[in-house]
Amino acid sequence: MTAQPMTTTAQIRRAGIQDSATVRELLLELAEHEHTAHAVHASVDDWARMLADPAVVVLVAHIDGRPVGYVSGVRQLNLWMGHDILAMDDLYVRAEARDRGIGGELMAALAEHAGRDQLLVTWGVREDNEAGHRFYRRLGATLRTKVVAAWQPAAYAGYVRDRGRE
Amino acid sequence: MTAQPMTTTAQIRRAGIQDSATVRELLLELAEHEHTAHAVHASVDDWARMLADPAVVVLVAHIDGRPVGYVSGVRQLNLWMGHDILAMDDLYVRAEARDRGIGGELMAALAEHAGRDQLLVTWGVREDNEAGHRFYRRLGATLRTKVVAAWQPAAYAGYVRDRGRE
Repeated sequence: MTAQPMTTTAQIRRAGIQDSATVRELLLELAEHEHTAHAVHASVDDWARMLADPAVVVLVAHIDGRPVGYVSGVRQLNLWMGHDILAMDDLYVRAEARDRGIGGELMAALAEHAGRDQLLVTWGVREDNEAGHRFYRRLGATLRTKVVAAWQPAAYAGYVRDRGRE
Repeated sequence: MTAQPMTTTAQIRRAGIQDSATVRELLLELAEHEHTAHAVHASVDDWARMLADPAVVVLVAHIDGRPVGYVSGVRQLNLWMGHDILAMDDLYVRAEARDRGIGGELMAALAEHAGRDQLLVTWGVREDNEAGHRFYRRLGATLRTKVVAAWQPAAYAGYVRDRGRE
């Protein structure tokens, strides 16, 4: 027998500049959970600037006034489609608030946001996050495996320099 | 014995609004080559608008005045880093101009563009494109496998609607 997840309705609202520290704290928690805290460089000041950017959307879920999770994304131009899409960045629910349907509530809130302009929503999921894959498939997302490349400034500077020596 | 690729120096220049039709033609050729022409929706007018956007960079390689390939990308805000990265979209060289090092020249030109602001460059590669993986690794890029999700407006509208019925 599997217990049905308890559903709690969280209050979800879009983060503004005043939520910079909260958003950064939640992001750092997520990154620590994923052992990728080294990849977080955005300061509270960066977040104040980013949250003032209308292309950035961060929706924070609260229970009893306490932030318990968030979903974030950036509206981006897609050159193949010729218009914007919404690139989702993170979906995170704090440990004490999991298994209550809050992830699904955050995704529904993001869908409502994206739906205003009928934006395609895309995001990446770790290959080993099978629970995540199942969750997103249940929402109606289509998943495929892709190779993602990153080219650091030092690496491409080396490439350009070595070409010049040929 | 493996033949050394012949190296031809192409003229590479950044596309402007006047190149909208050329860029769209090259992109359609790439998409047909990859059997993904159905995913191309950007019209020549869309391209004129996109090429006027300073966040969009399309570098076109020419030999004897004829366009033979391009690399494209969009400068995008990264929420973890707190600043922009350059998301590369396409790298394409026409069949008649392959094996002459033009792909490498285009990547070097993109590196010079990204290097002005020391932007990390990222892109996706098809999982089965092993020649592409080797090419990008030789350039110094790091590759990893990821699951990429897409959530279409009709799919998320269905999800939001079904939640309302629970």
